[in-house]
Order: sequence, then structure tokens, then C-alpha cells
Amino acid sequence: MRLKRFLPILGWLPAYHSEQLKGDLSAGLTVGVMLIPQGMAYAMIAGLPPIYGLYASTIPLILYAIFGTSRQLAVGPVAMVSLLTAAGIGGIAQAGTETYVMLAIALALFVGLIQFLLGAFRLGFLVNFLSHPVVSGFTSAAALIIGLSQLKHLLGVGLGRSTYVHEVLIEAARRIGETNPAALAIGLAGIALILGVRRINRAIPGPLLAVVFGILAVWGLGLTEHGVKIVGEVPKGLPSLAMPEFSLENFNTLLPIALAISLVSFMESIAVAKAIQAKHKNYKVDANQELIALGIANIGGAFFQAYPTTGGFSRTAVNDQAGAKTGMAAIISALLIGLTLLFLTPLFYYLPNAILASVIMVAVFGLIDIKEAVHLWHADRSDFWMLIVAFVGTLALGIEEGILIGVALSLGLIIFRTTMPHFAVLGKIPGKPLYKNVNRFDDLETRPDILVMRFDARLYFANVAYFKDKIEEQLEKKGKALKLFVLDANSINSVDSSGMHALEDIYQLCKTQGVEFYLSSVKGPVRDALSKGGLVDKLGEQKFFLRIQHAVDSFDEKEVPHYGDYVLQTN
Amino acid sequence: MRLKRFLPILGWLPAYHSEQLKGDLSAGLTVGVMLIPQGMAYAMIAGLPPIYGLYASTIPLILYAIFGTSRQLAVGPVAMVSLLTAAGIGGIAQAGTETYVMLAIALALFVGLIQFLLGAFRLGFLVNFLSHPVVSGFTSAAALIIGLSQLKHLLGVGLGRSTYVHEVLIEAARRIGETNPAALAIGLAGIALILGVRRINRAIPGPLLAVVFGILAVWGLGLTEHGVKIVGEVPKGLPSLAMPEFSLENFNTLLPIALAISLVSFMESIAVAKAIQAKHKNYKVDANQELIALGIANIGGAFFQAYPTTGGFSRTAVNDQAGAKTGMAAIISALLIGLTLLFLTPLFYYLPNAILASVIMVAVFGLIDIKEAVHLWHADRSDFWMLIVAFVGTLALGIEEGILIGVALSLGLIIFRTTMPHFAVLGKIPGKPLYKNVNRFDDLETRPDILVMRFDARLYFANVAYFKDKIEEQLEKKGKALKLFVLDANSINSVDSSGMHALEDIYQLCKTQGVEFYLSSVKGPVRDALSKGGLVDKLGEQKFFLRIQHAVDSFDEKEVPHYGDYVLQTN
Repeated sequence: MRLKRFLPILGWLPAYHSEQLKGDLSAGLTVGVMLIPQGMAYAMIAGLPPIYGLYASTIPLILYAIFGTSRQLAVGPVAMVSLLTAAGIGGIAQAGTETYVMLAIALALFVGLIQFLLGAFRLGFLVNFLSHPVVSGFTSAAALIIGLSQLKHLLGVGLGRSTYVHEVLIEAARRIGETNPAALAIGLAGIALILGVRRINRAIPGPLLAVVFGILAVWGLGLTEHGVKIVGEVPKGLPSLAMPEFSLENFNTLLPIALAISLVSFMESIAVAKAIQAKHKNYKVDANQELIALGIANIGGAFFQAYPTTGGFSRTAVNDQAGAKTGMAAIISALLIGLTLLFLTPLFYYLPNAILASVIMVAVFGLIDIKEAVHLWHADRSDFWMLIVAFVGTLALGIEEGILIGVALSLGLIIFRTTMPHFAVLGKIPGKPLYKNVNRFDDLETRPDILVMRFDARLYFANVAYFKDKIEEQLEKKGKALKLFVLDANSINSVDSSGMHALEDIYQLCKTQGVEFYLSSVKGPVRDALSKGGLVDKLGEQKFFLRIQHAVDSFDEKEVPHYGDYVLQTN
Repeated sequence: MRLKRFLPILGWLPAYHSEQLKGDLSAGLTVGVMLIPQGMAYAMIAGLPPIYGLYASTIPLILYAIFGTSRQLAVGPVAMVSLLTAAGIGGIAQAGTETYVMLAIALALFVGLIQFLLGAFRLGFLVNFLSHPVVSGFTSAAALIIGLSQLKHLLGVGLGRSTYVHEVLIEAARRIGETNPAALAIGLAGIALILGVRRINRAIPGPLLAVVFGILAVWGLGLTEHGVKIVGEVPKGLPSLAMPEFSLENFNTLLPIALAISLVSFMESIAVAKAIQAKHKNYKVDANQELIALGIANIGGAFFQAYPTTGGFSRTAVNDQAGAKTGMAAIISALLIGLTLLFLTPLFYYLPNAILASVIMVAVFGLIDIKEAVHLWHADRSDFWMLIVAFVGTLALGIEEGILIGVALSLGLIIFRTTMPHFAVLGKIPGKPLYKNVNRFDDLETRPDILVMRFDARLYFANVAYFKDKIEEQLEKKGKALKLFVLDANSINSVDSSGMHALEDIYQLCKTQGVEFYLSSVKGPVRDALSKGGLVDKLGEQKFFLRIQHAVDSFDEKEVPHYGDYVLQTN
């Protein structure tokens, strides 16, 4: 059992049967065929020679199939991680150089180590801090950056490698006259082909057709003589085993980007893995084991010239639709890429960069999510602004900065909101023992001698001042007629030592004003805290009631049940 | 009215009468007498010549009396702020030099500006993020650092200015042989005198007696010839009006320490102001106006050679006990210091540093709060650890770092806790329409066809994954018999767009399993959010119930009231 948890492949391989193979074979070949153009294109985003995209489509897939809990997840190079790789290494080394390649591979190792450790220490929950609006804004901005980074290949003009959208656009506009018409024509034809084929039948591998078309066009029409840039010599053969060049200095330089890639790639991967798993239900996706599996895939990949990989959204969806039943599908994809590396690389010699650019542009512009922004505008205005901040922050300040600002801002807002939480003065629904917010329900009964308040937040150091102020305000409003103050603690989900001090202060204040202080519906964990802090003893256990009506009845000297009537367990 | 709010002095001065003067005179003189030795001693902590402590005890007091809302708060130099001043400037300039003094005065200006702006923009709530345990741990550590910083004066040995306790102790131990017996004897006698007098009658100004004793001893016994260090020439005369030397470069260097002083000093001040006000009740302390008043006191003080000041704990308590009724007491204290500056400074020539050290040591070792740590150990274990972290962090890493780590850690813990909040499966109290945690109450009724769960936290991006997991777990446990899932939303204090997605997912999950999904006791703000997000329409308004029992009764096809029966206001 324990072994199965660490090696999820044991969950399906021993009972593998031909029915599964049928689905896996069809899915594995389909994804493999997708991977050939995507792998080369994404390597180009990462600033690497196209072959490295194919290398990254071999070993990591097999390792994930062994250690991963999802049976449909398609691991390999993805656009976002490729962009992050370029953003992280572009500042330290010249794209395409040996140092650059070396750093990209070292990066895969670091990412793998970080993911493995996060998983081993069960820190997968950290990814929860990347809220959906922040991720959506960040993804749209990154897609825009990636898409525009391909403009130079589409136009056949050697633009600089700026990641600032406005700089790219300005430079492109300035040098529009240098456009290579042949490259542009091929690129646009590629885009039209992919979009057209997709409209007819989603099962046809449009990008591969575009690749075939591009190669034939360049070769047949001799377009290299018209200045169309091609991929050129692609080395034959499988990636070889080699120790990644690991140094402490690299580690320090690459750490921030490695952390960003670890979390962002894990998030993309776990989101799609969970979505697909929800359809199947014959297995479970475990977040921490997923981190371990992606970690091992990256570490192992780094020993075979792979740059950082993760589970991709679109290929996983295709894998599932094409009938993948187990990780065997991924192994088949990897084998197909392996065969391609062994025998087919010479065919890519005439592949034009403009075609790879068209593959990328179609893929990433689909990631720009305007619908989500519109939805948030109506559903949750502050989440809308989070999305905008992450989007603008990423475009204006940079890839890592954008996501950092988004995360910091969402956490800050959460904290800020708990400092001034919602509270309500309650009144009684006539004829029923129910108390509701007097500002929201009409015709509630209130009494001059009784004040009932509800406070809708954990009570902790950052909001005790507000808590006390608001209660004092209401006590003052009620004036001398007041004889009983009931605090409905139903929504107070926890209390720290400052909260206890505040409750004690309220108790003292009530005492000096001759007002009884009762608490109702105090939750288990809060009750425990108040007991430990000595507050239950100080206030008197008989002042804690199961519900507001009991407190009021007790004040009116009617018989009511007390907590004391129930045996409390200490949890 | 508006004018009175900005000039609280108008609240008492126009109706000032002789009865008040009696109390104010006695209190003002008492505090003034305390201020003479304390001011000089605290200036020494700050690394300034003693006279600057007296300067800081004049103008700021009068300005606070005009703008401050507390009528008993005793503003002036305090130990903690003096230490922060030394920590901030000690790294940039040599203590006692002209540059050092200039920077300390510029610091007062910056602190004043920050406080004024915080108050004007009503950001006083920021101080709430300094939780009590963090402040307690930080204060104890700072007291230890301050106390030990005086060891050199007590021993009469020129130790270095390290703020690391272990370094100070090691150096002191190494050079214990160089101790000046006369200085040590005077210092110890001073400590004994202050403690002894305090035990007899707290109203006698022990520190002043120690000062008089010290001067007489040094002068009478000619101890300067035995190497006892004395204060020496103290210039005569009031502080003169002079523009503080303000430069952008200074501002950048001093900003971190200025921010720390602004918040820490405000917190000390507002805490004691509120505590004293709670006794009096004839006026209100307003946090933002307090910031403005302390800001003006510091800004104005900086134009008259004052270093940063704030409302002090012990002097305020003495002021109140001695009968202060209005800010006139503070004005009287300031006048007494003014007279001292004009006529009495020559008397301090023979004042030994060892006596000032004894004044400081007695004052600050009283701030080391072991009782609070013991209390927290029993009452709230995680708050105890916050205290320890702030304490150890301050000792090991430094003054600002310690408080920063404490704040970051307490906020981090708050966020961390909301990612895995408390939840409960509920059962019915037999014979009553009340539902409680099955793990805490015995003999609750549960039904195989109904699952009732309560989730005790706001539902937001960082905990939706946990929320869904826990519900899925419980749904699975119930198995096929389950027909109704009631989510008690009573403690869900707010919901963001991720929370809404999660509720929708739960709804979909229930639907595919043939389970009804009802919500009960949804709070007003959450109801609003769900309406705006379109979730009320999607789920159907008839699935929202006022309480759990209604949901269950509705499922059992009994008649129950719905939210629709009440007119909801939009708040």
C-alpha cells in the first residue's frame, strides 16, 4: 500500500489489459503528434534551439507516468513555463548560447528539487495562495507577452528580446517596412490552417499539418533564398545522460525564477489534473504526490537535457478526449518523440520559424481570458481589480513581479478586511426564537433593556480595537435603560490572547455600567480557548448559552438549558 | 465643533477652573521633577548629551497639550524610543558628535511627519498589526538591551556600543577587572535608593533623590579624582528655534527607523492614553487625532532641538495618580523644565553617569514582563511562541528586525490558519431544532440520508481547496444512502469569487450524485455576494433557509418559512 502511494504506476500496471491499451495507443499517438511542433515551438519561446523541446518531451513523460497520480496528465514543455524560463535566464546569458542551454537545464534541476521538497514536506497547499483572479490576470498578460515575442518570427524581422509589450509593438511598428513578405505569408497561412482545421474537426492535428505545409512550401518554393528563416540542422539521436552543471552561484541567481516556475507550473498541472480526475473517479489525485512526481520528472529530465516541464492544459485535454486510460498513453507519446529524434529530425531542416510562431500564437492567444474579467466585474469587484493589478503588473513590471504583486495584494486585502469586519445588531423575528440583522430584516423586535450583537470574524489582535469600539458605541446608544448585552459568538471562528483581553474588557465595562454580559453560541474551539485562558471561570459558566433566545429567556428568569447540561469533549 | 476636534484644548481651557488647577499643579510639578533625571538619562540611551533630554521635555509637551485628546498623557523622552533612536543613528554617525545630534533632530521631524500623515489619512488602525504578544516580547528584549547598555556607566568601564546582549556581557566579563569601584558604589547606591524609596512611598521622587545624592557624593568626596565619569558642563538656557537639517538623503537613510519609531511610539502612547481615559470618561481618546498630536509635538519639537518623543507609560500613570485633570499639568511640567534649563543646569555638573544609569536600569528592568509569557503559555500556546520569537529575534537580530519578524510571523500565522479552518459535522440535539458538532456533544441525532456540515471561516481563494476536499470526504463517507447535504453557512463571514466557484462545484458534485444541496443561515454580506455572482439564481432561491431545521423540514416536505418571506434590504 505504501509503495503504491509513492509509485502510483503500481495502481494500474499490474492489471493492465488490452481494452486500456486501445485507448492509450490512440491518445498517446495523438499527443505525440501534437508534441512535435509544440515542443519545438515552446523551446523557441524559452530561447532554446528547437531540439530541446523534443528532449523535454521524452524522459519527463516517462518519469511522471511512474510517479504521478493522474492517469491522463500530459507532461512536457508548456508555453508559460517556457516564458518564465526565458524571463529568468534571458537576463544572465545570451539566448541560444551554450551557457544559456546549460542554465536552462540547471533550472530544471532546481525546479525539480524545489517541487520534490515541497511535496515531501507536504507543502502543496502553498499553491492555494495563488488566487484564481491573480492567476487569470497573470496568464493573460503572459500570453500577450509570449504571443508578441513571436512577432519577429512572423514578420521575419530580427526584433530585440524585450518582454515589455509596448517596446515590442513600437519596435515592430518602426521596422514594419523590413517585413519579409514570404515569412509573413507562410506564418499567416499557418495560423489560418490551424484555425481552419480546428473549426472542421478538432481531432485533426492542425499544428502538424502546418509544419508539413511549411516544410513543403519552403523546400518546394526555395523560400530560403527569399530570406525565410528556417530551423536548419536538427541533431539526430536521443538526449544523452549528462550531469547538469550545478553550482551554488547558479542556485542563488536562479532561485527566484525557480520558485516562481515551481509554483506556477504546479498550479497549472494540478488544476487540469483535478479537473480531468473529476470525470474519471477510478483514481485520486494527491497534490503532494503530484509535486513529488513533477519534481522527479524535472530532476530526471535535467539529466537528459530537458528544460523545465509540467502538465499542460491543452495536451491533457486532448489526451483525455482521445481515450487515455492510464499513464501508458504518456509513455507511448514519449516513445513517438524518441522515434522522431532517432529518425525524423532531418525532415525539420526546412521548417520555417514563422510556422512555429503561428503554432505558438494560436495556442497562447486562446489563453487570454476576457470573459473571466467581465464575469468578475459583475460578481466580485475587488477580485476584478486583483485580476487587473496582476495583468497590468505583469505587463508593466515583469513576469515574476506581476505574480508577486498579485499575491501580496490579495493576502493584504484579506488581512485588511478582517481588521474591520462586518458586525450586526440583532432583533427577534416576531413569534420565533430567531435573531437577525435589524438592518436587513423588517419588523424585527428589539427591547430597550437588551442589546444583541453579532460579530462576523475571528477575534484577533488586528481587529480587537474595532470590536471594542463598535460594542462601546452600541452600549452608549442604548444608554441607561440597557440591562443585558448578549454577544452572539456564532461567527467568531477563533480567538487569540488579544481577543480574550478584549472580551474581558467588555465584561469589565458592562460590569461598571450595571449591564449583564452573556455570550451565546460560542463555538467549540473558541470555548476551549476561553477555558484555557481562564475567561470561562472569570465570567461564570452560567453566562454561556447555546443560543440567543436562551440568554434572553434566562435574563427573563425562564428555565433554559445550559452548556453544563451537555458533556463537552475536549476535541 | 470641527475646531474643537482638531484643537482638543478648546474642550477644557475655556471652562478651566481653580479646582482643576489644584490637581494639575501637583501633578505637573511631580512629573516635572521626574522628568529632570529621566530626560537626561534617556538622552544618554539615545547617545545624546543629557541636555537634549531636557530640550525634548519642553516644546513637545506644550504642543501635545494643545492638540492631544488625552488629558493625562505625559509626553516626552521615553526609554524605548531613545533606544530606537540610538539603533537607527548609531550605524551612521558617531554618538555625541554634532552630526549625530543633527540626525536625531531630523529623525524627530521625520517621525512627526509620518505620524501626522498617518493621522491625517486616518491610518491609525495600522498599529493594530502590532499584536500584544509581539510587543511584549519585543519590549522585554529592548529593556534587556537598554539595561545592559548602561552597564558601562555602572561599572565605569568604556565598553563598546554593541546592541547584542551576549557581546555586551562577554566584553563586560572580560574587562570586569577594570571596574571603577567608586562609580559602581554610587550606581548601586542609586539603585538601592530608588527601589527603597519606592517601597516606602511611591509619591516620593526616588530618581531625583538619587540625582541629588549622586551630585553631593561626587562633589563632597571629590570622586572625579577617582575616575568617576560625570555629566560635566550642561549649557544654560532654553532650546532655541532652529530649522532642522532636512535632506532627501537623510530621509532615505532614516526612513526605516522613522517608521518603526512612529508606530512603536504611537502604540505605547495610545495604549496608556486609552487605559487612563477608561477611568475618566469625561473625554474621548481619538486614535487618529492622537497621531496628529504626537506628529505635531515631534515636528514642533524638532524646531527646538528635541529628539523623538511620545507619551510615556510610567510618567502618565504618575501624572494621573498625582491628580492631573487637564493638559495644564503637562504645560506646568514643561515650565518647570524650562526654569531648570534657565537656572539649574550648573547644578548637574557633578552628576555622575552611574546615577543616570541606575535611573535607567530600574525603569527598564520593570518592563521585562515574564508574567505575560507565563500567562500565554497557559492561555494561548501560539501567542506564547510569537512572544518568544519577537524576544529572541530582537536580541539576536536587532531592534527593527525583531519587531518586523514578529509582525510578519503573526500575520503569516493568521493567513496560514484560515487555509485549514475548523469545520464540523453537525447532529441534532434530541427534541430541539438545534444542530451541534457531533464530536463535541454526546447523543446527537444524525440521519443516514442527511449530512449537515458547518465551515468556520470566510470562504476565499486560500481555503477553497480544503473546503471542497473536506466536503467531498464527508459526502463519500455517507455513501449512497445520502439524499440531502445542508451547508450551515452561519460562520462563513464572506465569500470571494473563488469561494463562489467552490460552492458551484459542490452543487454540481451533489447533482451528479443525486444529492440535494441546501444552504442555511447564509449571512447578509454573503447572500449579497452570491446574488451578484449569479449563484442564488443558479441554485434556486428556495434552497436557502433561515436555519438548519428549516432545510431539514423542507426536505421532509413540512412547511417552513423561506428567505423570500422577508423583505431583504440591500444594506
